[in-house]
Amino acid sequence: MIILGIDPGYAIVGFGVIGCEGTALTPIEYGAITTPANTKTELRLCEIYDGICELCDKFHPDAVAIEELFFNSNAKTAVNVCQARGVILLAVSRQGVPVFEYTPLQIKQAVTGYGRAEKHQIIAMVTTLLGLKSAPKPDDTADALAAAICHGYSSSSILFKFR
Amino acid sequence: MIILGIDPGYAIVGFGVIGCEGTALTPIEYGAITTPANTKTELRLCEIYDGICELCDKFHPDAVAIEELFFNSNAKTAVNVCQARGVILLAVSRQGVPVFEYTPLQIKQAVTGYGRAEKHQIIAMVTTLLGLKSAPKPDDTADALAAAICHGYSSSSILFKFR
Repeated sequence: MIILGIDPGYAIVGFGVIGCEGTALTPIEYGAITTPANTKTELRLCEIYDGICELCDKFHPDAVAIEELFFNSNAKTAVNVCQARGVILLAVSRQGVPVFEYTPLQIKQAVTGYGRAEKHQIIAMVTTLLGLKSAPKPDDTADALAAAICHGYSSSSILFKFR
Repeated sequence: MIILGIDPGYAIVGFGVIGCEGTALTPIEYGAITTPANTKTELRLCEIYDGICELCDKFHPDAVAIEELFFNSNAKTAVNVCQARGVILLAVSRQGVPVFEYTPLQIKQAVTGYGRAEKHQIIAMVTTLLGLKSAPKPDDTADALAAAICHGYSSSSILFKFR
C-alpha cells in the first residue's frame, strides 16, 4: 500500500510518500510544496492544489493521511492554513484517493508511543522508522511522514484484527 | 459590470449575482449552494467547488466579492467554513475571476451606512436597494448580496475619483 502523508500549511505543505506492507515501511519520496509570500491568497491556493494533484498523479497513493486542525487563536495564519487544508482535501478527493484524518495525539502516539511527544522526538522516530540517513527537512516534511506512518500502522492493526 | 457576491459557508454557501452600472444595481440571480450533512468533508467541498464553477460559467462575473473570515472560537464549524472558503477562492481563481475581500464592517457600512448594523437591518437594506419583492432567503443569500453591493459601491467610488 502506498500512503501519502500531508502536513497541511499555507506557506509550506509538507508531504511524505511511503510504502507500507504489514508493519514494514519504506520511504518513497518526501519534501514540501512551498508558496511564495506577497502573492494573492487565491494564487497560492492554486499552487497547493496543483502540487497535490501532481503528487497523486506521480505516486498513485492508495490513501492520504492528514492531520486534523484545531484552532486556539484568532490568527490570520489559522484562517490561511485552514483554507489551504480545504484545497488539499478537494484535490485528493477529486483524484479519487480516500482521505484519513488523525489527531496530533493519534499521530504522536503511533510514531513515538507517547501522545505528548516533543517535536524532536517525532523527527527522531520518523528518521529511525524509515531508515533515513538524516532527519527530513523542513519539520513539516517530518510531520507529513509521521501522518503517513500513523495511517500505515492503523491499517496494519485493522488487518491483524481480522486475521 | 456583473458581480458575484459569496457568503462562505460549509452547509450553506449564499450567493448573489447583481449587475452594477455606476450606482444602479439590478438583481440577476441569488440563492444558496447547500451540502448534505452526514457526508464526508471532502465530498461536501467538491460540491461547493462545482457549484461555484457553475455560477462562474453561467453568469461570467467580472468580479467576486467575499467576506473576510475571523475566528473567535475553537469550533469545528470554524475549521469547516474556512476549508470551504479555501475551495471557493480556488474555484473562482481557476475560472479567472478577480477576487475582492471585504470585512464584515466594510460590508455593513456600505449597505446600511453603519458598520455595526444588525442582521435584520442588512436584510431590509439589501431588499430595498435591489428592489426585491421579498427578503432573500436564507440569510446567507442576503449576506452574499450585501457583499456584492459593497463591491459595486466600492468600484463606483473608484470610478468617480478618476472622473
